[in-house]
Amino acid sequence: MEGAATAQALSRIGLAGLAVMGQNLALNIAEKGFPISVYNRTTSKVDETLDRAQNEGQLPLIGQYNPRDFVLSIQRPRSVIILVKAGSPVDQTIAALSEYMEPGDTIIDGGNEWYENTERRIDEASSKGLLYLGMGVSGGEEGARNGPSLMPGGSYGAYTNIKDILEKVAAQVEDGPCVTYIGEGGSGNFVKMVHNGIEYGDMQLISEAYDVLKNAGGLSNSELADIFAEWNRGELESFLIEITADIFNVKDELTGNGELVDKILDKTGMKGTGKWTVQQAAELSIAAPTIAASLDSRYMSGLKDERVEASEIFRKEGLKEEISSDINGISSVDKKRLIDDVRQALYASKICSYAQGMNLLRAKSSEKGWNLNLGEMARIWKGGCIIRAVFLDRIKKAYQRNPNLANLMVDTEFAREMVQRQAAWRRVVGLAVQKGISVPGMSASLQYFDTYRRSRLPANLVQAQRDYFGAHTYERVDKPGAYHTEWAKLARKARV
Amino acid sequence: MEGAATAQALSRIGLAGLAVMGQNLALNIAEKGFPISVYNRTTSKVDETLDRAQNEGQLPLIGQYNPRDFVLSIQRPRSVIILVKAGSPVDQTIAALSEYMEPGDTIIDGGNEWYENTERRIDEASSKGLLYLGMGVSGGEEGARNGPSLMPGGSYGAYTNIKDILEKVAAQVEDGPCVTYIGEGGSGNFVKMVHNGIEYGDMQLISEAYDVLKNAGGLSNSELADIFAEWNRGELESFLIEITADIFNVKDELTGNGELVDKILDKTGMKGTGKWTVQQAAELSIAAPTIAASLDSRYMSGLKDERVEASEIFRKEGLKEEISSDINGISSVDKKRLIDDVRQALYASKICSYAQGMNLLRAKSSEKGWNLNLGEMARIWKGGCIIRAVFLDRIKKAYQRNPNLANLMVDTEFAREMVQRQAAWRRVVGLAVQKGISVPGMSASLQYFDTYRRSRLPANLVQAQRDYFGAHTYERVDKPGAYHTEWAKLARKARV
Repeated sequence: MEGAATAQALSRIGLAGLAVMGQNLALNIAEKGFPISVYNRTTSKVDETLDRAQNEGQLPLIGQYNPRDFVLSIQRPRSVIILVKAGSPVDQTIAALSEYMEPGDTIIDGGNEWYENTERRIDEASSKGLLYLGMGVSGGEEGARNGPSLMPGGSYGAYTNIKDILEKVAAQVEDGPCVTYIGEGGSGNFVKMVHNGIEYGDMQLISEAYDVLKNAGGLSNSELADIFAEWNRGELESFLIEITADIFNVKDELTGNGELVDKILDKTGMKGTGKWTVQQAAELSIAAPTIAASLDSRYMSGLKDERVEASEIFRKEGLKEEISSDINGISSVDKKRLIDDVRQALYASKICSYAQGMNLLRAKSSEKGWNLNLGEMARIWKGGCIIRAVFLDRIKKAYQRNPNLANLMVDTEFAREMVQRQAAWRRVVGLAVQKGISVPGMSASLQYFDTYRRSRLPANLVQAQRDYFGAHTYERVDKPGAYHTEWAKLARKARV
Repeated sequence: MEGAATAQALSRIGLAGLAVMGQNLALNIAEKGFPISVYNRTTSKVDETLDRAQNEGQLPLIGQYNPRDFVLSIQRPRSVIILVKAGSPVDQTIAALSEYMEPGDTIIDGGNEWYENTERRIDEASSKGLLYLGMGVSGGEEGARNGPSLMPGGSYGAYTNIKDILEKVAAQVEDGPCVTYIGEGGSGNFVKMVHNGIEYGDMQLISEAYDVLKNAGGLSNSELADIFAEWNRGELESFLIEITADIFNVKDELTGNGELVDKILDKTGMKGTGKWTVQQAAELSIAAPTIAASLDSRYMSGLKDERVEASEIFRKEGLKEEISSDINGISSVDKKRLIDDVRQALYASKICSYAQGMNLLRAKSSEKGWNLNLGEMARIWKGGCIIRAVFLDRIKKAYQRNPNLANLMVDTEFAREMVQRQAAWRRVVGLAVQKGISVPGMSASLQYFDTYRRSRLPANLVQAQRDYFGAHTYERVDKPGAYHTEWAKLARKARV
């Protein structure tokens, strides 16, 4: 299948960068009936991919061993997906390939790239007459092979060139394939970034539910497996809840004792997208405390040695790590109620986290003129990606009902659910606070809810302080205008 | 006092940018006996400053009306402070002045500048043989006039040229003037930025204390004024607590009814430094949730219309804004205990917030090689600046005891205080959670404490999830190495 490209052998599309994600996406495309050329700088990866294409059903995949042959083996206008590490490897790959590309051809970066890098590359590509897409790809290796969620942003023309391919390759759910044209510029990368921030939030909230059930409820791994499996049949049904149930079932094969989850070190790794999400939220004046709490929790999980030492220091001062850790006081009825409360707390907390992510998308869309359709964003996350969940269909519908919804929490349906769940949610956070079990995500969500639903916050005092020491002025509740007061002078007067 | 400079008339230092801060700082310098030249592009400000110098004690201040005369009126090596808006006005001012400056002269930017801008300007100045300082100035207009906290960073030589001036001009506390050489590069701006982030935290925590005392405790403004005045005689003694007591005493002179604080709109303004602090924390992998919660609270305070609407929507669904708002149930004894609990909660929350700020400084210092002395940072904040407080002396001592202290919370003295206060703190947060009074700052602090003191977090589950869907691998608690597990396969096996 090698050799110089002939007219007959031209591929429909090309893919460069054959790590597992790239291989899997290429095989997925080939399997959907689109002949594909593949290329990798380390050419053994090309052979590996060819072998897999052979073994996984004689798929129409053509290996190429240099950039020129690779590019020339694709039919015009050419579409080339690159799947290499974000940052300079992308620039290098573009430089190597674009030399042989012609005006009207398209480069599609499928990595987790910072959206501004994509916008710079769109301009650079444009100066050569090339089109460009920055395409978020979610679903991990498995999703890439069997149906990811795809978030292509950039040139609309470039999108239409490969729309038929993307719609076949993406995960399929009942209301269509999990792909849509996101918008101009770096919008595809930005939406993927926020998706990842939401993913951080979901994972943190689940880990807190686990922590409370284990340490306040005394649940065993086997009970936890059952609970999460049960939750996965209700409103929480989602990929992450499903795999959590699985995780509690896995035995530790290395020692033969107990479950593997207990043997895993409590230090969490991360890549850059969660950090970017938090930084962008600050930049756009959007509160995203649940996502930020998830990022912070990963940072603090990394301080394992410090935490072990701190635990010891506070224990010496008389504070046990588990405050009133006697779980015998909790009767079986309490346990059942706790489980039900935690389920509600998790769900309500999740709504807040998604509300934050959605508002971040809207703020950026408004800044950049991307015109993002939030309902569509929720729809294409329904399948293929890590946060896929039944609940996303309801988010889609909320934004269909009202595309200008100020906050997901105040959608008619979600507002009702929040109110129904808030008492249980308060009980869970209250219990955790009392027992010293940290629940930064659930707690941040609850504070977000309680801040947003209050018509009057104590920010009047902050404004008074700012006017006192910095003459920043303030507004009044009863009259328009900006006011400044000589506070110190009037306070002296009042004291006399 | 105008005209061409003669040898006799040369000033010791110059200051350009005569808004109120600039005027006040210039008058402060002149008052300390250092002849100063002043300049402003809008020359009426020069005359205004000259008038003030005359009226405030015939101070040695020389007005100049163009950049050339201004620069040439200063003795060599020249030191010129500029106090204009951060960003391009600084570049414009530098361009106008540096034309007449000579190698060995120094520019000192006293604005709230982004530290990287300072680092760029240091390089630019250096190419002309000029020295540069980015100097944080805290204390507002009043501090600038009577003694600010000064945070000069950049050229050490430039610092030594004006050390005598800065040490006289800065606020004076019992262990010296509130100024020290911070470090190289943009360190002075960075330290000022974190100072402001901490200031956001303090103000938010105080506003939450007010909110809980008012809405859960039913305290009147007059009672609040007394409580804060009383707190200002104890461990919470600080400028912000002091002015808060003042604020509650101020009557509304516009309507003649009640206290002014109740008439102020609950929308908080802000400038950029709080946002930068949060973004830098994320960048440096430092959890700073209390500071982040303060920023988010300002953002959410701005959504006044949305909040009013949300309050109504949730009320219609059956959730009152104040949950079980019947404060008659709280007896006078409870009220007294609540007040005492809130004081403890505020203090413990503050420690967490300062711990976050200090760790942010250390992380940046380590990244940039600034070699910041954290104890000294606490010392120079003891006077002059907005966060000045008795408590900073104890922070100074904590870092003197152990310059490598991993976290302020685990210093021997602070650890004991945290443990003594944690029960009250939990009661306050628990009560607020139950009553639906948002306390995002206190709650973020408590979660920070409870996360940091736990030797085992549920991050093991997050790592298991990451390994499940992304093959990110995990570590084990009992054996070294990185492991990967085929979770789905093993879970299927376990189910059989």
